[in-house]
Amino acid sequence: MGLKEDALDIHRKLKGKLEVNSKTPVKDMKILSLLYTPGVAEVSREIFNDREKVYEYTSKQNSVAIVTDGTRVLGLGDIGPEAAMPVMEGKSVIFKLFGNVDSFPICLGTKDAEEIVNIVKNISPTFGAINIEDIDSPKCFGIVDRLNEELDIPVFHDDQQGTGIVVLAALINSMKVVKKDIRKARIVIMGAGSAGIGTAKMLLSFGATNLLLLDSKGIVYEGRSGLDKYKEELARRTNKEKMKGGIEEAINGADVFIGVSGRSNILTGGMVRKMSRDAVVFALSNPDPEISPEEAKKGGARIIATGRSDFHNQINNSLVFPGVLRGVLDVRAKKINEKMMLGAALTLAGIAEKNLSEDYILPKTTDMDVHRKIAANISKTAAETGVARIRK
Amino acid sequence: MGLKEDALDIHRKLKGKLEVNSKTPVKDMKILSLLYTPGVAEVSREIFNDREKVYEYTSKQNSVAIVTDGTRVLGLGDIGPEAAMPVMEGKSVIFKLFGNVDSFPICLGTKDAEEIVNIVKNISPTFGAINIEDIDSPKCFGIVDRLNEELDIPVFHDDQQGTGIVVLAALINSMKVVKKDIRKARIVIMGAGSAGIGTAKMLLSFGATNLLLLDSKGIVYEGRSGLDKYKEELARRTNKEKMKGGIEEAINGADVFIGVSGRSNILTGGMVRKMSRDAVVFALSNPDPEISPEEAKKGGARIIATGRSDFHNQINNSLVFPGVLRGVLDVRAKKINEKMMLGAALTLAGIAEKNLSEDYILPKTTDMDVHRKIAANISKTAAETGVARIRK
Repeated sequence: MGLKEDALDIHRKLKGKLEVNSKTPVKDMKILSLLYTPGVAEVSREIFNDREKVYEYTSKQNSVAIVTDGTRVLGLGDIGPEAAMPVMEGKSVIFKLFGNVDSFPICLGTKDAEEIVNIVKNISPTFGAINIEDIDSPKCFGIVDRLNEELDIPVFHDDQQGTGIVVLAALINSMKVVKKDIRKARIVIMGAGSAGIGTAKMLLSFGATNLLLLDSKGIVYEGRSGLDKYKEELARRTNKEKMKGGIEEAINGADVFIGVSGRSNILTGGMVRKMSRDAVVFALSNPDPEISPEEAKKGGARIIATGRSDFHNQINNSLVFPGVLRGVLDVRAKKINEKMMLGAALTLAGIAEKNLSEDYILPKTTDMDVHRKIAANISKTAAETGVARIRK
Repeated sequence: MGLKEDALDIHRKLKGKLEVNSKTPVKDMKILSLLYTPGVAEVSREIFNDREKVYEYTSKQNSVAIVTDGTRVLGLGDIGPEAAMPVMEGKSVIFKLFGNVDSFPICLGTKDAEEIVNIVKNISPTFGAINIEDIDSPKCFGIVDRLNEELDIPVFHDDQQGTGIVVLAALINSMKVVKKDIRKARIVIMGAGSAGIGTAKMLLSFGATNLLLLDSKGIVYEGRSGLDKYKEELARRTNKEKMKGGIEEAINGADVFIGVSGRSNILTGGMVRKMSRDAVVFALSNPDPEISPEEAKKGGARIIATGRSDFHNQINNSLVFPGVLRGVLDVRAKKINEKMMLGAALTLAGIAEKNLSEDYILPKTTDMDVHRKIAANISKTAAETGVARIRK
């Protein structure tokens, strides 16, 4: 069978990928009288008397809601909450596998930003953290900002923050291979949705100074008409020369191309040829990258990465989100701040450091060390920056 | 250790009672490429093209949200969403154990009825059914009515419907033991919260005609000032003689006393003595019943039941909710209607029928046959009454 038939088949047979289990087998009614009435009333009383004990006695300590409205799912676009379900379940499988995080999809029947904020706030007592997923931009930015301000549990926006962290890690190592300075490198980011904005912010946080951001209308520059406030902020922080134009203009002499545009084959071998020596090309759109690895190679790129598992140098959020959420849950963190994200990127980059080459800039997702080390670093930085409720 | 220490200890050690697992082990990246990207995109596309397929390919088909605002938890009252968590988790353990239903607690940070309705509606794409739990009355009635009108998945209100079903089943069998006709019996229901209202409605549906409902102010009668619309409806449908007064007046000559008041020791042996011959006393408030079994015995009651597991004749919602939800999920039902509830009560009563005695009016929760038979009956009646999406 092909991929489609195989995927439909396994989903049909499983009847849904997730199950919610009791952690302990219920062998007799005695144990049930502790897990449920009458014993459970004593536990409720303890938490009523000291609300923070909800972390000690309940599943909140290890639970994450994966929240989406299904408006920007994979490369499929606005497919709605039902069609988003299998993706969110898959994400939950990965959370458990690599982070031992118990996560549950919450696919919402509303696309209204105000309603989404209100719902997430009101379901937050149940969860130790929130993962916002596949909500269309720029709407998602406002939602995430509001939630970060108003909630006392961390809100992770994987499309933005997860992508930013993994791309920064890949770039740190790529720059080591080609012996360039990320702070001075000319970096072109194609795509100004969640991934593009998140990556740009992450690179700026790390110290990059020479950044160009492009959306479907071309290079983002200060004063361009019709920019939303998120692009406007980045227009101010990137493109110091106020360059205008499209990909042809931007790519000239660039050290790094990062494609997160959702558009296939918009970068050509000819364009890569106009990049500087030892060019780095991350063509991350899935399933069809901005340029095929073969074509990028022909254009003379020295390091080529994609989002796909069937080429080497896969740059994949799965390297990041299980460890980040494991780390915040372990110390009952209140927030995920910039230092935590930078620490996660450096940790991830550090794991691959010893064996770096053109074809090896990041470790594999299946390397459990990756998730453990990111989690430990996130916990440590959370404690150091005062957003942890407990020490691990 | 005592109950309290045991309960706190096991909760602390478990670090929460629930976990969310992948149904299939993820042995290699091949299977992950089907459960997540790229394979999962094909599944999302199928559902996008035909939304009903969400039942075929996702966990929606077996998922229930246990929704509460924590305003009326057990006998503890308004303890809030965090303190409600261990109870909802316990309920989830029972759902899995007896019904193989995957349920997840959603403990809400709002007490506003309109907001609760809106949140449940908007999270409903994720779930195959909703279980409303431990929301204060009369607020809960309006919420449940609205949700039943506006959702296309069933909404079960366990405090009301679960209690109604299990009490009706217990009463059907009790009346067989004492050889009385439930339709003519004089029945006193003490307590007019969710359980009292739900029980009264269920008994009326079955054909009871001689019912008195009491709240904290005494007997409910038509024209009594300050009745909410739910009590007003029951004032019209019960108490044909428009009797006034309190428990002393109501109990005189009654065949059945059903206590769901949350108040301990409000029925005395002396009052039981004033009931008719072969009196039936269900003192269901937990942990402390309206009258102790010993005292009721002294008063001459022939059948005595409580909500507690340490006396015989336990009347417990756990006999009902796992099978009901199993049954609606099996046929992807849209609603839970009156015929389904009556069928569940008759099925439950029928299971104990052969060995009936004063001390055996209902089967044990641990009898898996109970849950299987209720589920089968619910599925069948759903199909017969046109609320099932599929046949089992």
